[in-house]
Amino acid sequence: MAFSEFRRLDEKSLADYIKSVPSLSSKLFGNGSLDDELTIKEVGDGNLNFVYIVLSSRGGSAVIKQALPYIRSIGESWPITKERAYFESTALKEHRRWSPNHAPEVYHFDRTMSLIGMRYLEPPHIVLRKGLIAGLEYPLLAEHISDYMAKTLFHTSLLYHSTLEHKRAVAEFCGNAELCRHTLQVVFSDPFKVSQYNHWTSPYLDQDAEAIRNDNALKLEVAELKSKFSERAQALIHADLHTGSVMVTQESTQVIDHEFAFYGPMGFDIGAFLGNLILAYFSQEGHANDQNDRKKYKEWILRTIEDTWNFFHKKFIALWDEHKDGSGEAYLPAIYNNAELRHLAQQKFIQELFHDTLGFGAAKMIRRIVGVAHVEDFESISDASKRAYCERRALGLAKVLLKERRKFQAISQVVSAIQQSAKESNMLRRVNSGRSWVLPVIEGAARSGWAVGLKVWLFLGAAVRWGNGSIWQ
Amino acid sequence: MAFSEFRRLDEKSLADYIKSVPSLSSKLFGNGSLDDELTIKEVGDGNLNFVYIVLSSRGGSAVIKQALPYIRSIGESWPITKERAYFESTALKEHRRWSPNHAPEVYHFDRTMSLIGMRYLEPPHIVLRKGLIAGLEYPLLAEHISDYMAKTLFHTSLLYHSTLEHKRAVAEFCGNAELCRHTLQVVFSDPFKVSQYNHWTSPYLDQDAEAIRNDNALKLEVAELKSKFSERAQALIHADLHTGSVMVTQESTQVIDHEFAFYGPMGFDIGAFLGNLILAYFSQEGHANDQNDRKKYKEWILRTIEDTWNFFHKKFIALWDEHKDGSGEAYLPAIYNNAELRHLAQQKFIQELFHDTLGFGAAKMIRRIVGVAHVEDFESISDASKRAYCERRALGLAKVLLKERRKFQAISQVVSAIQQSAKESNMLRRVNSGRSWVLPVIEGAARSGWAVGLKVWLFLGAAVRWGNGSIWQ
Repeated sequence: MAFSEFRRLDEKSLADYIKSVPSLSSKLFGNGSLDDELTIKEVGDGNLNFVYIVLSSRGGSAVIKQALPYIRSIGESWPITKERAYFESTALKEHRRWSPNHAPEVYHFDRTMSLIGMRYLEPPHIVLRKGLIAGLEYPLLAEHISDYMAKTLFHTSLLYHSTLEHKRAVAEFCGNAELCRHTLQVVFSDPFKVSQYNHWTSPYLDQDAEAIRNDNALKLEVAELKSKFSERAQALIHADLHTGSVMVTQESTQVIDHEFAFYGPMGFDIGAFLGNLILAYFSQEGHANDQNDRKKYKEWILRTIEDTWNFFHKKFIALWDEHKDGSGEAYLPAIYNNAELRHLAQQKFIQELFHDTLGFGAAKMIRRIVGVAHVEDFESISDASKRAYCERRALGLAKVLLKERRKFQAISQVVSAIQQSAKESNMLRRVNSGRSWVLPVIEGAARSGWAVGLKVWLFLGAAVRWGNGSIWQ
Repeated sequence: MAFSEFRRLDEKSLADYIKSVPSLSSKLFGNGSLDDELTIKEVGDGNLNFVYIVLSSRGGSAVIKQALPYIRSIGESWPITKERAYFESTALKEHRRWSPNHAPEVYHFDRTMSLIGMRYLEPPHIVLRKGLIAGLEYPLLAEHISDYMAKTLFHTSLLYHSTLEHKRAVAEFCGNAELCRHTLQVVFSDPFKVSQYNHWTSPYLDQDAEAIRNDNALKLEVAELKSKFSERAQALIHADLHTGSVMVTQESTQVIDHEFAFYGPMGFDIGAFLGNLILAYFSQEGHANDQNDRKKYKEWILRTIEDTWNFFHKKFIALWDEHKDGSGEAYLPAIYNNAELRHLAQQKFIQELFHDTLGFGAAKMIRRIVGVAHVEDFESISDASKRAYCERRALGLAKVLLKERRKFQAISQVVSAIQQSAKESNMLRRVNSGRSWVLPVIEGAARSGWAVGLKVWLFLGAAVRWGNGSIWQ
């Protein structure tokens, strides 16, 4: 039952398809009869694809994902190439090559059908975002996701690649241009202009959305990030690494949904993950109730943000040290020929990556509040005024992170900023139900440059080391 | 006489080849008999290729360029793909599309033979570098080359391209990876390490070459530029735009030799051109004699450096304004929706491009003095001590430009720095034949940061506006 041209499968035709494909039928039926019963359930809850869980009566399982030539959540009015399935399977396999514990096995890929067969991430795996909404802690999350990010980003960059293999890989993933264009539109364009697709918690955030569209300093920084996203082929990035692209249990962390993958800036992946954790943090107040004030959970989220970056940093540098005499052509050992110089080069590299991470993370936060696709963290807060309150806090912080990212020197300062802005606004909320004064002050600092910024930072108690005119600045 | 596989042509077989190719024979013979005599002369004086001038007795002409699978000036021990001819002809045609007055017409391309037939740039066209050595002024040079750079770089960037066409073009030129790797080696690697290919005016510059290999701050900045060159697909750049890749007369400026072309950072082209003009400037003392002290000529070079950047800046921004509502996807008019914001975006863009230009230009200067391929500007100074004196001045300035490029705000400051360092060293030379003290002071400033830097700049009288912590920094 090979198809010579694309057709959308349903539960019935999928069963027939599976039986005709040895790499799938062997996973489901072993060496047994193909007449055993299959249970097939469509579970796709994302924006883009149809996803089926397939179970056989003898305990075999698989997930089948089929891409359609339009965005599922919007319909045929927003076409998007189904060729993305090719890039998804290629990227997933490449990422699994480097981080086999944190990306599921691909059993089968059919380019004609835009169909991927892969490991079924069995219960109790759930989407991380849903765990964050439910207030569940994942003690190994930071350890695992930092492993995934460090290994996939390092090994697909010029720190590991030769120039020739890098250019070859970059060229291939240029083919995923339609998906890049989609990201450019929804992350870097639509939120900053009037667009039919934008929406927000109205009327509460009407002025906030308008303020974003009128914020020149913000739009200038967004242009810089957009150009980095469009032009800088630093590593094979997942390019959609939010908390909905990660499946978790207490022991397992699995990254899925690689259809946006291409050679882009590393900070886009790290920023997507951290930015979505920050959104989760700001949404917690909307999920707090008399049984659980979520205070301890918020602390766990902050610890996970801090650990994720710090573990990533450590693992990435360890890989760099390990491979310093390897095939990577970015820093030749004959030039970067002593430990001090290599350390300086690493510091400079990580500093830029950190600022990229904050910028991209902030852009991803903004787009989830005033752009087309929102996050369940906020959407599941049914009281609109409470939701808007949470979203406004997140938006305020995101604007500061984006515009002032170069002033942050360590992730602990970011955590302090999150914490402090939430604390002050809570304090204020107790005496006054109006808007907090803290974020306007930070935003004011962002506008008026370092002098006011310094005062705000001293006020926030963050250990800011100011740029000293050295080459690190 | 079509060839099914590559073979190196000589004068005899080239004549037969031309007669078998209508697009070439029509240029040389018109509608006349193919028995007319052809005059064929091999003139390739570059590093890479064989180049023939072909003239017919009835006044037809062409240049035939054939790429060989190794570097001509080094031999078969340094292989380099002949596929570069494909990228040369593709890039030349694309650049001529945007700047038809400053790139010669391609008559014919044969991929099997790695052979390009193109317009013969008839006398009095000479290679610009030779004109600079001879002390000839080209009053239209800055106007022409800025036209070429502004038009080719603008129209092949995301300021003009859609995302889809940009990715498609980037992918194609990823195929020219071997030539990129060559540039990476000779510009960004070899000069900063011990390499069998490096040479310099020894023993005079032995210590200078060693100092470069031991300059950590320099090597850190070089790493950043190298990563931009490797990863940032900003526009279709010529990628070898030195003064040997430009043919000139008083009225005409023609850019040739596009075999290194790929999608890279714009500043690499502008920097290559300006860096080679600065080399020409510093070489003038070696060409001065009793008849001509070259003083006026040096002023013309400085004026050309300043005009080239300023004209480029003006033309590039004019193109941006003209196409602000066009198909380019970098700055959507709905976001950058007022003149003030567009102006700020342009300022930010140009500032980064200016600093890239200085960094890449300086790297190109350094490699021409201590790397594998030197420039005739210096090589033609037969007195080695005089040559070394000129080269050391250029090297000192290049190190400052590379390490301190972000402190320069306008091309006039660069010109002041060139002028002042030359003047001081001349002054000093009159009282002392030893090393000048000016460059060590500037280099010291580069090492010790802004405080000393400020004094040096005040001393130099350059109107330096210091970074003020604003978003422009």
